[in-house]
Amino acid sequence: MKTDIEIAQEASLKPISEIAEELNLSLEDWEPYGHTKAKLSDKLLDKLSDKPNGKIILVTAINPTPAGEGKSTVTVGLGQALNKIGKKTVIALREPSLGPVMGIKGGAAGGGYSQVLPMEDINLHFTGDLHAITSANNALAAMIDNHIHQGNALHIDPRRIEFKRVMDMNDRALRQIVVGLGGPLRGVPREDGFNITVASEIMAILCLSNDLNDLKKRISNIVIGYTYQEEPIYVKDLAVEGALTMLLKDAIKPNLVQTIENTPAIIHGGPFANIAHGCNSILATKTAAKLGDYVVTEAGFGADLGAEKFLDIKTRAGNFEPDAVVIVATVRALKMHGGVPKNNLTEENVDALKAGMENLKKHIETIEGFGLPFVIAINKFPTDTENEVQYIEAWCNEHQYQVALTDVWAKGGEGGIELAEKLVHTIDSDNRNFTRVYELEDSLETKIRKIAHTVYGADDIELSSKAKKQLAFFEEQGWGNLPVCMAKTQYSLSDNPSLLGRPTGFSISIRELRPSIGAGFIVVLTGDVMTMPGLPKQPAALKMDVTEDGKIVGLF
Amino acid sequence: MKTDIEIAQEASLKPISEIAEELNLSLEDWEPYGHTKAKLSDKLLDKLSDKPNGKIILVTAINPTPAGEGKSTVTVGLGQALNKIGKKTVIALREPSLGPVMGIKGGAAGGGYSQVLPMEDINLHFTGDLHAITSANNALAAMIDNHIHQGNALHIDPRRIEFKRVMDMNDRALRQIVVGLGGPLRGVPREDGFNITVASEIMAILCLSNDLNDLKKRISNIVIGYTYQEEPIYVKDLAVEGALTMLLKDAIKPNLVQTIENTPAIIHGGPFANIAHGCNSILATKTAAKLGDYVVTEAGFGADLGAEKFLDIKTRAGNFEPDAVVIVATVRALKMHGGVPKNNLTEENVDALKAGMENLKKHIETIEGFGLPFVIAINKFPTDTENEVQYIEAWCNEHQYQVALTDVWAKGGEGGIELAEKLVHTIDSDNRNFTRVYELEDSLETKIRKIAHTVYGADDIELSSKAKKQLAFFEEQGWGNLPVCMAKTQYSLSDNPSLLGRPTGFSISIRELRPSIGAGFIVVLTGDVMTMPGLPKQPAALKMDVTEDGKIVGLF
Repeated sequence: MKTDIEIAQEASLKPISEIAEELNLSLEDWEPYGHTKAKLSDKLLDKLSDKPNGKIILVTAINPTPAGEGKSTVTVGLGQALNKIGKKTVIALREPSLGPVMGIKGGAAGGGYSQVLPMEDINLHFTGDLHAITSANNALAAMIDNHIHQGNALHIDPRRIEFKRVMDMNDRALRQIVVGLGGPLRGVPREDGFNITVASEIMAILCLSNDLNDLKKRISNIVIGYTYQEEPIYVKDLAVEGALTMLLKDAIKPNLVQTIENTPAIIHGGPFANIAHGCNSILATKTAAKLGDYVVTEAGFGADLGAEKFLDIKTRAGNFEPDAVVIVATVRALKMHGGVPKNNLTEENVDALKAGMENLKKHIETIEGFGLPFVIAINKFPTDTENEVQYIEAWCNEHQYQVALTDVWAKGGEGGIELAEKLVHTIDSDNRNFTRVYELEDSLETKIRKIAHTVYGADDIELSSKAKKQLAFFEEQGWGNLPVCMAKTQYSLSDNPSLLGRPTGFSISIRELRPSIGAGFIVVLTGDVMTMPGLPKQPAALKMDVTEDGKIVGLF
Repeated sequence: MKTDIEIAQEASLKPISEIAEELNLSLEDWEPYGHTKAKLSDKLLDKLSDKPNGKIILVTAINPTPAGEGKSTVTVGLGQALNKIGKKTVIALREPSLGPVMGIKGGAAGGGYSQVLPMEDINLHFTGDLHAITSANNALAAMIDNHIHQGNALHIDPRRIEFKRVMDMNDRALRQIVVGLGGPLRGVPREDGFNITVASEIMAILCLSNDLNDLKKRISNIVIGYTYQEEPIYVKDLAVEGALTMLLKDAIKPNLVQTIENTPAIIHGGPFANIAHGCNSILATKTAAKLGDYVVTEAGFGADLGAEKFLDIKTRAGNFEPDAVVIVATVRALKMHGGVPKNNLTEENVDALKAGMENLKKHIETIEGFGLPFVIAINKFPTDTENEVQYIEAWCNEHQYQVALTDVWAKGGEGGIELAEKLVHTIDSDNRNFTRVYELEDSLETKIRKIAHTVYGADDIELSSKAKKQLAFFEEQGWGNLPVCMAKTQYSLSDNPSLLGRPTGFSISIRELRPSIGAGFIVVLTGDVMTMPGLPKQPAALKMDVTEDGKIVGLF
């Protein structure tokens, strides 16, 4: 079987100018980055404001398992399939982070015959957005330490600096460090640590901004830490929001590429889906909706995290509504949720599948709770048996759920036509009544309780004493009307990663809150959240190489 | 008077496709990065190997002073002037580092009507080369700490890791840090520190590589540190040179832009001029020599550092010879060398000028020692008086030196025509007999002594006990046949930055050596060399902003 990179390197890409022409873009609307990548103008959305919006389809999934669900692959395949059935479609995806690429095999560019291309560039430096975010983040960090070094007029408490440096790399040695050692010429010593770039608040801001001005305003509202008197200090107090915005003036422009079947794809932004909202940028999604009659987009992890945040955070910041949802599952992953260990997944096991369906069921209920029409996509794997597939179909029929088998990895758009047709039909019947989980006017605690109860199925929440104090303090600061962004394990509906399927009778422990006032949400931590990954014993990088003629090998 | 950025924003740029066409480049030879930047293929040099080389003109200067010399501005202006007199010329420059842009006003894009454009992009992220170098550098650093964390099969001594992480930022708090704190999940604690990206050995390697293979080979030879038994450990021992080369596959491609007068300029690479060799890439210079009948290029700091390294290191690695040298000076800077404080430079002072000429004289002797023809460029400032200028001209006539006044900041190429004509005449008379300062077969100590004696005018060198041990150890390792790269203050011919003019009767103190085996030289440290700058009390970033329509203000 061919690998993703082999399939990618055999593909026939159109010049990006041709893709741009097919989208009726004029030369002022886009800039080339090489022959197969482009940046769209950040003014394009405004220019197209009179055009009606295309239908927005959100692709989400069950709780992820090591078996793999293929959410990005289905997103790309579905976009290709819609084009195949004559619906002008644009895909909107997140851009991958370089760090994990070096660490473990896997990217966010889809797979097989449902990939976005050029996959090497997209998985490496792409058009430099993550590098620009790293620069802006670290310029701010340097300004903070410089401010303290130069006399600390703002009385920043060096023990209470919340804003960390970032690096787009898996580098565990930077998780906890001490900076500023070596005497008065080397700054003021303090404890610090690096996050991976996608965990930067600036990444979340870039993805939630409607334009460059909005971006600058949000940056000025980042809380970098607290004074000795525990008053919050904002970026605007340091007066560097102009310089940081300048560093992001190109990064805010959405990137245009194409899939292996030449379907246009806008790939832009990629915040963490735990301490941030895990969706591509508002500019990407909304620009795609102006350029296509249909937009297929995705959110991180399962529906409990990514879709909830897409619907409660992103659609609010961008002031738009989705038209339908796709919930992706695989036979393998459902069997894992039903208790089968990873090594036994190739064996038929309808009983385990049946048990695992409960996980899917909960996510379906969540989407129903949002009042959105949906289609279930069962993403095919070669080891799926006839009995297993029939069981799922029967189960869906019994519950009157729309379901489609997809085979987009192997067949590209052709493998997603059933899904595409069912979706178009579902959207056309248009019976949606979009309702969010909470109101902005709810207190922060009420918002957390509503999500825990209705989305996770928890009986209760348990607030640590720190979280209780923070809830009061944050409300006092006037931050109570912001959405909450739950940082919970992606593997379980609960906060315990080992509870698969549909756990019941549990509480969600709320350890700590963090203000992302620039991004415009309050992060709620339900456990230890790793914001700087490490490399494995045998990093994927060991297999990577580039041949004499510049061809990349071993990337995937 | 207009600022550089105001002049730049009023300029009329040609589409980069037009510049590429004028250079007879076909579509496979270049890729666009926006409408006014491009990357040239790293295969272009090879493709043009049958074409004769253009004449290579190196622009260097007296020892820099706070008064400013304008070496980059003269380089750009001279390129424009040569085109004006009908000589097809391509300029080859270094790319600026983002860190200093945020810190203090000043970039490496020339000034006034002798700038390379788009100056905002060039001074910010440009085509991402520095970001790619940062990524490759930090991927290697993460691999080193991961190797130790995962069991340390290579027995890397955590106290003897020479390879540091980098950031393209002025961030003094990162100069001396402790990483790996926080227990077994967070790596192995050790002392560490960040350099600024331009101080990365990978930057020097990129600039000294003749192609992608050469780059990979050089990367595999980086010494990252030593075992507990003090044996050097190379990147090839970690087997990650393939992945690092992959990260640099686009960064190795030279960047094509244009000047304010639409003269083509190749801007590529920018290593430090103290712990590295301070020149743009070999690929940039040699590609420019294939595309133009004349190439104007520059080297960092004064002739004692930049030109010496250009001639002893870069021309060896690239196997080429320059055809002529321009030595830039200003009346103001010469007066500073003659003892005038910065605040009194506007007053006429022929006596001080006369004393300061000794600094110029020493650099002239150095270039004569290399056997190269040269022209002195006196870069005009509005405060220069008639008497001062006449004194310099008389002095040059007396010594039979070619001299030209340039006014390229205010007049662009027009202000450099005298210089251009004298240079063409000088090159045509072709009486050069290029000879380097030392032979590769000389011992490391002999190489250091030859540079100190003939280029700096020192009586002797003093070796610290550490340096003595290292000289023996490095020779033992088989590194003795590499060129040496002197890390000395740029402000003085001596190793004492306060000794201006032409100091005599001094020794050069050699504190320490560092192996840059990948780059292919031994760094010789003559004092404390700062490899991570800090921000000033009022960083330039405070004035920077971007308007609603994306226009940058306050950058310069």
